[in-house]
Amino acid sequence: MILSPDDTPRILVLGSGAIGCFYGHALSKARAHVTLVVRTDYPVIKVHGVNMLSESLGDQLFVPHDVIPSCHSYQGSYPDYLVVALKVVKGVDRVEMMRPAVGPNTVIVLIENGVEIENEIHDAYPNNQIISALAFIQVSRIAPGVVRHYAYSELTIGNYPGDVSNECKELARLLEIGGVPVVLNENITQGRWQKVLWNASFNPVSVLGGVIDTLRLLNAPGGEQLIRHIMNEVMLIAKATGNEIPADLPDHYIELTYKAPAYKNSMAIDWERKQDIEVEAIIDNTIAAAHRENIPVPYLETIKALIHMLQTQRELGLI
Amino acid sequence: MILSPDDTPRILVLGSGAIGCFYGHALSKARAHVTLVVRTDYPVIKVHGVNMLSESLGDQLFVPHDVIPSCHSYQGSYPDYLVVALKVVKGVDRVEMMRPAVGPNTVIVLIENGVEIENEIHDAYPNNQIISALAFIQVSRIAPGVVRHYAYSELTIGNYPGDVSNECKELARLLEIGGVPVVLNENITQGRWQKVLWNASFNPVSVLGGVIDTLRLLNAPGGEQLIRHIMNEVMLIAKATGNEIPADLPDHYIELTYKAPAYKNSMAIDWERKQDIEVEAIIDNTIAAAHRENIPVPYLETIKALIHMLQTQRELGLI
Repeated sequence: MILSPDDTPRILVLGSGAIGCFYGHALSKARAHVTLVVRTDYPVIKVHGVNMLSESLGDQLFVPHDVIPSCHSYQGSYPDYLVVALKVVKGVDRVEMMRPAVGPNTVIVLIENGVEIENEIHDAYPNNQIISALAFIQVSRIAPGVVRHYAYSELTIGNYPGDVSNECKELARLLEIGGVPVVLNENITQGRWQKVLWNASFNPVSVLGGVIDTLRLLNAPGGEQLIRHIMNEVMLIAKATGNEIPADLPDHYIELTYKAPAYKNSMAIDWERKQDIEVEAIIDNTIAAAHRENIPVPYLETIKALIHMLQTQRELGLI
Repeated sequence: MILSPDDTPRILVLGSGAIGCFYGHALSKARAHVTLVVRTDYPVIKVHGVNMLSESLGDQLFVPHDVIPSCHSYQGSYPDYLVVALKVVKGVDRVEMMRPAVGPNTVIVLIENGVEIENEIHDAYPNNQIISALAFIQVSRIAPGVVRHYAYSELTIGNYPGDVSNECKELARLLEIGGVPVVLNENITQGRWQKVLWNASFNPVSVLGGVIDTLRLLNAPGGEQLIRHIMNEVMLIAKATGNEIPADLPDHYIELTYKAPAYKNSMAIDWERKQDIEVEAIIDNTIAAAHRENIPVPYLETIKALIHMLQTQRELGLI
């Protein structure tokens, strides 16, 4: 499925949160046929498209080729790329949601957080190529049909479990045309472990610490030390799974975080807004790998149990 | 200082929260001269005394022999017993608060939570006898000058660091006259470690879990396991400090907690009411002992760092 310059690639974006809209818009700017699957904001986006607000990129209107309420409504031949930009949370059955749109040649692109999130997709669609992507970006859906973009660096992509295919390069080309810098990574699985090093430590600790920002978190008594303990556990798990992380990455991440202005991370913001938080992909999958590899993870286990208590309380409407 | 039946013991109670009022009242019923040091509710209690509300004991009015705003106002000869019922929290300098009232023969009675809370008192007043007491009781100050009593079993007392003196027995006799069942404990330090086994696990976990009640806490995914991990750390620390806890106490505590109706513990309630929580006595002192004894305590350290983050956020008025 190498597209000749004349072909118009068919792209279906599943998930119309900030991430789905942002990358869908970029692909649309590259003249791909982008269909957007929209659940909650369907009436607004169907009629008005998505307002993309950005200081650095300028405000733009994203009008998809088509807007549909679910993959069941997808018309015509199967998409060349199915871009999945759903939060990986309990109760969202990604495998079934995408099923009507997965053709024999559809490349499945997962722009999602966490580790080992590709497994269930690969198990369900073993003959489909999977591209795994890590978004280093700050975007937020601030109202129905309105996405604000704050800052981004690159989108890192590669095939799952490794390698970079021609389809992957073609996707990168389209994204670059659309204005997104792309980094191709031959070992995207290791890339996921590197990203989760930050996410599995800072994200849940921030929520548990009272939606505390990065600098107050690091400066609280024992704060930096706790982050380092959790990172150390993630390092050991990554290594055991064959995805060794450079030994100096914890220092590097912590240094960068000290240097950056204080901010609340995405999980903290989701929690504050009473939205789902990605506990399964970021924490539970990490701990599951630790158990599989017989690595003791007391820090992560404490975090996990406490987060699940908060979720219990939230579900009951008590907090 | 054995009191003959004709002597009227002079008792100064420092701290007029629920605990101080409850035991001060009991000693007052035993015809001791009870002076109450009252900080926040001074105007109300000075004029009206304390209303003690209780289903099981009946509603009673506690009018102390005298009510004073600080130990500096204490008149006449030094008290026979100085009962300290202050929360052990940062910013409360117990040593200096009690200094004006500590005579050469004053017995200092500490009715407070936590471990190793006697050390600094002993260091400051090395020649004074110290009685250490553990209150197994549910009482709460529900308004200025109003204390509600819900339930209690015994007050456990003994000399610090061990033994039971005649003065200790005399205090027990007075409390029993006042209606309080007393258990004398020759090894009160071990008793403190046994009590902190519950407090260091359930209390902070409940706060971090969103002021979660005992049963939801235990039933949350990983909840009971987290409590057991923390208890296991406390068992090892207690043993290393020479205060070995019976091996079946964790099972026993957890079983009792499952059987009791769901409730929020005192630290959770204090947190909910935006009052100080006893982190230092219950968690920090426990961890300090672990470090002294070279015992790794990852679960307790995680809890401690997170609680301190919550306190940072609370101090800033953010939560």
